[in-house]
Amino acid sequence: MNYLKLFSPATVANVSCGFDSLGFAVDTVGDEMTFIKTAEKGVKITAITGANLSYNVDENAASAVVKKMLNEANADFGVALTISKGYSPGSGLGSSAASAAGAAFGANQLLGNIYSNLELVKFAMFGEEVACGSQIADNVAAAIYGGFVLIRSYEPLEIIKLPVPKELKLVAIHPQVEVKTKDARAVLPSKIDLKDAITQWANVGGLISGLYREDYQLISNSLVDIIVEPYRKKLIPHFDEVKNAAIKSGALGAGISGSGPTIFALCKGDEDANKVHSAINESYKNTGIAYTLFTSKINDKGIKILESN
Amino acid sequence: MNYLKLFSPATVANVSCGFDSLGFAVDTVGDEMTFIKTAEKGVKITAITGANLSYNVDENAASAVVKKMLNEANADFGVALTISKGYSPGSGLGSSAASAAGAAFGANQLLGNIYSNLELVKFAMFGEEVACGSQIADNVAAAIYGGFVLIRSYEPLEIIKLPVPKELKLVAIHPQVEVKTKDARAVLPSKIDLKDAITQWANVGGLISGLYREDYQLISNSLVDIIVEPYRKKLIPHFDEVKNAAIKSGALGAGISGSGPTIFALCKGDEDANKVHSAINESYKNTGIAYTLFTSKINDKGIKILESN
Repeated sequence: MNYLKLFSPATVANVSCGFDSLGFAVDTVGDEMTFIKTAEKGVKITAITGANLSYNVDENAASAVVKKMLNEANADFGVALTISKGYSPGSGLGSSAASAAGAAFGANQLLGNIYSNLELVKFAMFGEEVACGSQIADNVAAAIYGGFVLIRSYEPLEIIKLPVPKELKLVAIHPQVEVKTKDARAVLPSKIDLKDAITQWANVGGLISGLYREDYQLISNSLVDIIVEPYRKKLIPHFDEVKNAAIKSGALGAGISGSGPTIFALCKGDEDANKVHSAINESYKNTGIAYTLFTSKINDKGIKILESN
Repeated sequence: MNYLKLFSPATVANVSCGFDSLGFAVDTVGDEMTFIKTAEKGVKITAITGANLSYNVDENAASAVVKKMLNEANADFGVALTISKGYSPGSGLGSSAASAAGAAFGANQLLGNIYSNLELVKFAMFGEEVACGSQIADNVAAAIYGGFVLIRSYEPLEIIKLPVPKELKLVAIHPQVEVKTKDARAVLPSKIDLKDAITQWANVGGLISGLYREDYQLISNSLVDIIVEPYRKKLIPHFDEVKNAAIKSGALGAGISGSGPTIFALCKGDEDANKVHSAINESYKNTGIAYTLFTSKINDKGIKILESN
């Protein structure tokens, strides 16, 4: 393979109860990236559209990943890269993860598919470190595996792909406010009540059971976060209004996507998703804050090849 | 139905990572109870064997449950009850729960099966309160539903029955030492590190996924308790030796059953279970502490009717 164009999805990490452990991939929102094999060794970025990101190969999450992979594989070729961001960095939808995961997937294709998905997640985590300062797996794993993923363990890294109930739909609103991941981390307590932790892990168990059983009521009952959301929601204007509007209009649950500010809602079926979309729109349209709002299937495939030769 | 003899199983609560949320039922160890409908109203215990328990109807978990159920259903009959304990109270294998769950199940049969399993759990939780002072659900739910159960929520009470992988076997050792539930609660911290809680709920998610997927490696990887076991194991002599012996000889994992002192190990298949049984026996036989040791299937049916007319 000498040329590849791919779609790398946006992702929703945490999924209410599953802080730092769960994530899922979005079907219709993500980045497009192209990879051209070059005779000259090394990596260069030839175009970035849709966001103002660094062209410095070592500072850009995508090129840093490609460079690392070519080096480790002793590749006798280079790669010219383009990145077309389909959504904003800083949204809480795993923007750097989409680029890093797409980079790992794309480089692997040009290298002849020598790495497993788990290895690709590890390379993409290096990209997350370049972009965000820490090797977080939930967004990149969701992008690479598709569907829902559980990060069962970091050491050793173990990713469990979970089933996606067929009628599950996502509605997400991205208010155009800045929530720095650093700040979103800083508001969290380092210690929590054991009894709250028990409630939370019972909900993780319920959510995962609900995914396996395709039990929407159980998913709904379990989409509760009593640990992180109470702190982080203060960083997101009108969070409660959005959440209440979503649930009142039929969402299974709603919460913060990653570290925000995007608020996600999960719904059963198109009809409910449409109602929730409208209700969230109503709840935000007079706030004076600009926002984007979208509805999507859950992406069960992960990164998709759009063109290749 | 005028007469009923049943088997109510011992249960393992917590299951390493799932403190206060998970439990499962044992196939070969439990209580036998008989229920005879009497023309005279009220409840009486006519025999208790195998343990020194109160005959006072309001102080005995089983009779207290039967009395409450007959009252609430306005029954026009009474019940004469016998309890034959198949294992010791204070073992950490849900002894009071077996009696309370058996009582709820048995009374419901005589009442014409008017209550759901969830309602039976609630009645049995009242029995747990009589016996232990608090309405804990994990043991009684495992006894009534059988197999693995998740207590997703207490308010409202929601029990999720989880699948039982076919080859899963239990080996359990009950060292004859006393661990008071009160003491086992007192050693726990009220606050825990958020990062430990994340590790724990990722393991809960892994264990539950493993049960659904029948993935013994994943079950094994997830049978880890970094929150409760480090504190409670100090109350159980030679816990580490038993656990290490079990895992070295092929157990998927091992931990404290309920609040102890019983130590449980889960194994894949009879051959491994036999090896683990022997290894645990070797590890304990020279400690000077008396113990009982058994191997069992997981009980997927819950309470079993042995005779009725």
